[in-house]
Amino acid sequence: MRAPLLNCDMGESFGNWALGLDEQAMPFVDCANIACGFHASDPDVMRKTVALAVAHGAKIGAHPGYPDLMGFGRRSMACSPQEVENLMLYQIGALEAFCRAEGTRIQYVKPHGALYNDMAGDFDLLRAAMQAVVRYDRDLPLLVMSTANPGPVRELAAEMGVTLWFETFADRAYDARGHLVSRRLPGAVHHDRDAIVEQAVALAKGEPLIADDGSELRLPADTLCVHGDNAESVAAVKAIREAFQRLADA
Amino acid sequence: MRAPLLNCDMGESFGNWALGLDEQAMPFVDCANIACGFHASDPDVMRKTVALAVAHGAKIGAHPGYPDLMGFGRRSMACSPQEVENLMLYQIGALEAFCRAEGTRIQYVKPHGALYNDMAGDFDLLRAAMQAVVRYDRDLPLLVMSTANPGPVRELAAEMGVTLWFETFADRAYDARGHLVSRRLPGAVHHDRDAIVEQAVALAKGEPLIADDGSELRLPADTLCVHGDNAESVAAVKAIREAFQRLADA
Amino acid sequence: MRAPLLNCDMGESFGNWALGLDEQAMPFVDCANIACGFHASDPDVMRKTVALAVAHGAKIGAHPGYPDLMGFGRRSMACSPQEVENLMLYQIGALEAFCRAEGTRIQYVKPHGALYNDMAGDFDLLRAAMQAVVRYDRDLPLLVMSTANPGPVRELAAEMGVTLWFETFADRAYDARGHLVSRRLPGAVHHDRDAIVEQAVALAKGEPLIADDGSELRLPADTLCVHGDNAESVAAVKAIREAFQRLADA
Amino acid sequence: MRAPLLNCDMGESFGNWALGLDEQAMPFVDCANIACGFHASDPDVMRKTVALAVAHGAKIGAHPGYPDLMGFGRRSMACSPQEVENLMLYQIGALEAFCRAEGTRIQYVKPHGALYNDMAGDFDLLRAAMQAVVRYDRDLPLLVMSTANPGPVRELAAEMGVTLWFETFADRAYDARGHLVSRRLPGAVHHDRDAIVEQAVALAKGEPLIADDGSELRLPADTLCVHGDNAESVAAVKAIREAFQRLADA
Repeated sequence: MRAPLLNCDMGESFGNWALGLDEQAMPFVDCANIACGFHASDPDVMRKTVALAVAHGAKIGAHPGYPDLMGFGRRSMACSPQEVENLMLYQIGALEAFCRAEGTRIQYVKPHGALYNDMAGDFDLLRAAMQAVVRYDRDLPLLVMSTANPGPVRELAAEMGVTLWFETFADRAYDARGHLVSRRLPGAVHHDRDAIVEQAVALAKGEPLIADDGSELRLPADTLCVHGDNAESVAAVKAIREAFQRLADA
Repeated sequence: MRAPLLNCDMGESFGNWALGLDEQAMPFVDCANIACGFHASDPDVMRKTVALAVAHGAKIGAHPGYPDLMGFGRRSMACSPQEVENLMLYQIGALEAFCRAEGTRIQYVKPHGALYNDMAGDFDLLRAAMQAVVRYDRDLPLLVMSTANPGPVRELAAEMGVTLWFETFADRAYDARGHLVSRRLPGAVHHDRDAIVEQAVALAKGEPLIADDGSELRLPADTLCVHGDNAESVAAVKAIREAFQRLADA
Repeated sequence: MRAPLLNCDMGESFGNWALGLDEQAMPFVDCANIACGFHASDPDVMRKTVALAVAHGAKIGAHPGYPDLMGFGRRSMACSPQEVENLMLYQIGALEAFCRAEGTRIQYVKPHGALYNDMAGDFDLLRAAMQAVVRYDRDLPLLVMSTANPGPVRELAAEMGVTLWFETFADRAYDARGHLVSRRLPGAVHHDRDAIVEQAVALAKGEPLIADDGSELRLPADTLCVHGDNAESVAAVKAIREAFQRLADA
Repeated sequence: MRAPLLNCDMGESFGNWALGLDEQAMPFVDCANIACGFHASDPDVMRKTVALAVAHGAKIGAHPGYPDLMGFGRRSMACSPQEVENLMLYQIGALEAFCRAEGTRIQYVKPHGALYNDMAGDFDLLRAAMQAVVRYDRDLPLLVMSTANPGPVRELAAEMGVTLWFETFADRAYDARGHLVSRRLPGAVHHDRDAIVEQAVALAKGEPLIADDGSELRLPADTLCVHGDNAESVAAVKAIREAFQRLADA
């Protein structure tokens, strides 16, 4: 068993505005998705967040988003594939500078918010994101949403020469295709910590999840998305970490 | 004789707004100071400008500025040294990503506009700019304004471990300290092409300039700032290039 | 006959970047659509553009867009209706301040670019735009794209209490529904000045246009969009203005 | 006795980032200084904040700042007087639109942060700020920092035709000129609630304060700045309000 890497959005403060419990969550995650200034963060926040990740030995991932601070990168924007490739390159490079200043390197790329979702539904944008990674450093894994049918995305990645990390969620319900159930529907988000840990452990063990129609669902799970927004979500991260430790010790 | 490298601001368009005759000027310059998105440019313009520089074999310099698109980086902002270090790192890294995508590397750093001027008058900011370069890549030269008294800046650079390129101007009058005469004063800017070429050649030969008080002025001149804003300034660049070629052939 | 008002985008410069021949076009237009800082313009450009419109007696229209300077407001953004209402209010008010400073008032509202297009295809966004106008000043007309089937839009406007000005184009081909033919298709844009003037005159006379399938097309035409981007488009504006004058004199 | 109006910065959230306890503080203040989008806030936050002020009967003041979200408007920027006039007009107008939408009006103007401080030290900028108010609506009072020597500012205001409201602080120490003691010095900020209330009451009664050199200091005090950042500062606002009520009842 190789437990999925725990990845968590970090460095989402901006100027005078603080967001997220980075210092509390960082010790428990494997991978810090660090915002790069387009949807959140600024040069000072990026510097501090990279230093915090280094201090805790977390892998640093570039977390590029659409250029929309006001909307936190959560509003889809009709960017062309070439624009997506370039805005990703820009943000990856900006973060890398802070990694160099702190003696480390970017180790993966996870697009943020609406950009991440748009990529999942549009192969031209997905190819653009892959192209950004390939042109920057083809050894960097790109995080993509896991689904029950990862074949086409894997084929595109093979063609482009990109390594993928499939990302799963422990606190979200899935449908039978392996897509996240819309947050607008009841039961879409697990709030019970035991349920969250149970889903994380199933993913770690490679056991099937139960989709919202009752069917069994198998998802590739290189990494698991966790949250450091508040005390409750940090507690869930710790609980998942401890459960994974028990699995490793067993 | 080693002629000063001709450096020119490039890539100052932004979105739908075009600025500068980059394609006409690029063949005649040694060094392209490429804007990095804070005072001008955007990811698409940066990508194209880096590719243009590569096509013409120009060295690529990061040209970071204050975060002030509306003011084109020409308005001084009361940033702390730490903020300056970080906003320079951010912009240098962003440009480097496009260099990587186009198979090249950043080869020097020249801060822009008000940031460049503020550095010349405030050693804390100058040290911050040096720190950014050192933390990013201590082999990158940093452009600074030449003066008749470069000693203190050289000492700071030696202490910090930074290589300096002293920058001079062929189209500007100097005072006896080797400072540019304010644009608000008559005679501050040379508009006559012959006068511009003559000043450039004097700098290339290591001959003294004549300051505005009639005294002789010797300036270190690793590089010479030229302009690609309009047809006239591009013609001046060509004339300087030809004059330097004649010197080299002589 | 009442000729359609000639409306033209104005004040699209931004900081150091100039765009459009506002001074040349302003004398020939009835209505200046003045950018409000979200997709183009800044406070200084707005002040100058309002003063220019006042000097030439042009009506001043607020021209609010999506918050996307880099994309010039031409990229659709997934804003909610509430967000659209508020971003329109913000920009209308900002422009009004310059009108007050120059002794005049906003006289209509024309959303810009992707926002204008999105409104044409989404009644929730159209209602939000109407709501912004109603909450600000229900006497201000709102420009909307003319089509062969204006009934539903008129009904919504009546329900909301908004005055509409239907906008037409002299330099664009229409399909049988009265929609603009996509710029990607051949023949979508008229480049011949005579053809442009002829279409403008037909609209002024209330005569039908010929759609791209050969059918007759009748469009409500309160206003006609003209362009001041370059010398050629300004010449077309003058030619349309002269043709309208001949109609009025006849 | 006419107690100084309690003014408080409000609406300083931005997009996904929350800041300030507006809902808790609003019931206890007379005047809400509402951020206008350049240093903080966005159209949605402005709309909500105006509605909140209306609900509690607070006067609404425009709180324009330098265009520097990253620096929260706290970094001085070398803007020309004309730029300051125009950026103030822009922001005042933008806020007015939300006032109109919510059935109210702007009732005063208080520049924010570095702009406010720069005005206090530079009469050209102060005149520009006054010019913005005069051109927009000469009946709107402009808040300026109170000092022991308000004469010159009053003269300029009389010449410009602007009403001034002199602003004082209950939680800050003053020097003998009536300038705030720098935050970098010990004793600059009063943290003890009793001391804060005592200073507020002295200002309300028109009694002299004791400056940091022990001298008596008399300050014009049309308004008093209070804070809603956290529970402690809100508690101080309530305590001041109650003390003022006791004075009024006495």
